[in-house]
Amino acid sequence: MSSGVGVSPGNVPVYYGSASLKAVDRRMKVAEVVLRWMICGLGLAAALIIGTDDQVRRFFTVEKKAKFTDMKALVFLVIANGIASGYSLLQGLRCGLSMIRGSALCNKPLAWAIFSGDQVMAYVTLSAVATSLQSAVLAQWGQPELQWMKICDMYKKFCRQVGEGIALAFVVSLSMAALSCMSAFNLFRLYGKNKGRENTSW
Amino acid sequence: MSSGVGVSPGNVPVYYGSASLKAVDRRMKVAEVVLRWMICGLGLAAALIIGTDDQVRRFFTVEKKAKFTDMKALVFLVIANGIASGYSLLQGLRCGLSMIRGSALCNKPLAWAIFSGDQVMAYVTLSAVATSLQSAVLAQWGQPELQWMKICDMYKKFCRQVGEGIALAFVVSLSMAALSCMSAFNLFRLYGKNKGRENTSW
Repeated sequence: MSSGVGVSPGNVPVYYGSASLKAVDRRMKVAEVVLRWMICGLGLAAALIIGTDDQVRRFFTVEKKAKFTDMKALVFLVIANGIASGYSLLQGLRCGLSMIRGSALCNKPLAWAIFSGDQVMAYVTLSAVATSLQSAVLAQWGQPELQWMKICDMYKKFCRQVGEGIALAFVVSLSMAALSCMSAFNLFRLYGKNKGRENTSW
Repeated sequence: MSSGVGVSPGNVPVYYGSASLKAVDRRMKVAEVVLRWMICGLGLAAALIIGTDDQVRRFFTVEKKAKFTDMKALVFLVIANGIASGYSLLQGLRCGLSMIRGSALCNKPLAWAIFSGDQVMAYVTLSAVATSLQSAVLAQWGQPELQWMKICDMYKKFCRQVGEGIALAFVVSLSMAALSCMSAFNLFRLYGKNKGRENTSW
């Protein structure tokens, strides 16, 4: 590979005019790999923490059990984070391979696919966090006007574990949002044709 | 302005190498204006539809009233769509002025500001729709395992109006997502330096 050609975080060959862009690109590549593997781990952790969450309480002779499937929003959160984790595993492997090879042949359709995937995952994971947070707020404080009673007084351990899972899922969704910005950068700069301006300032 | 220079939908001067890019840019400019004004109208409509929603039911001597403030998610939806509407009004005016003038002087910081604003608004409006949808599902079907009873059997008109507001808010959030892609395009192509490839294929 010639000195004027580098590989973007999205595996897209980009032609540089300045050293600063090359340095930014290298840092972005590392940041992308770190974020993808972080999402893979945290997404799996969030799904496991919520997916294994239950608590049994005994009221005299009656046994009552709270489990994550009682709240459809938590089921959505588990599925969304499971998918985000698997997706990031595949993308992390792609990034890892491109770093090991030092270069990768790529094209606009792939950059579009990565951008679209990241966008969808960012919106899906954020929606899952939002709905789960809404359920968690209801569980914590209830909605007396609608006679929806709070349940966290009864199921403290269950609610605490849900809170931990949602916190992790929130980090996952923020990371996905950051990644979707990076993949937008990797894709749309391919359409740049600002030949009239040589000195790109950040 | 010379024939080789155009103005992007984000008011950012871009230098073209091909006629097809210029045509795409013109279409995007029109699409951006349409979307911004649509969001302005639909966001306001969604906020008003939800914000004015209430229903009084009389049970013998007891009078019960359902109003949108009973569900915090709906309050969030009203605020988010109100802000989206105001934001789109300002952006719509900016786009309109740039179209009337035919050109506009602009720079990267403004492109970054538009991109950041659109990103935040897309995530906020989508989160508001997700939380409201979660509340609406609970109101429609309840969550018997948690003893959260459905309320839409009692307040049919209230729930129907909430549904209409959420549907409009969903269109607003999808439009904001599309706009955030456009502003990403307008920003990041400024960083493109693919001088080695003259023929940019879409």
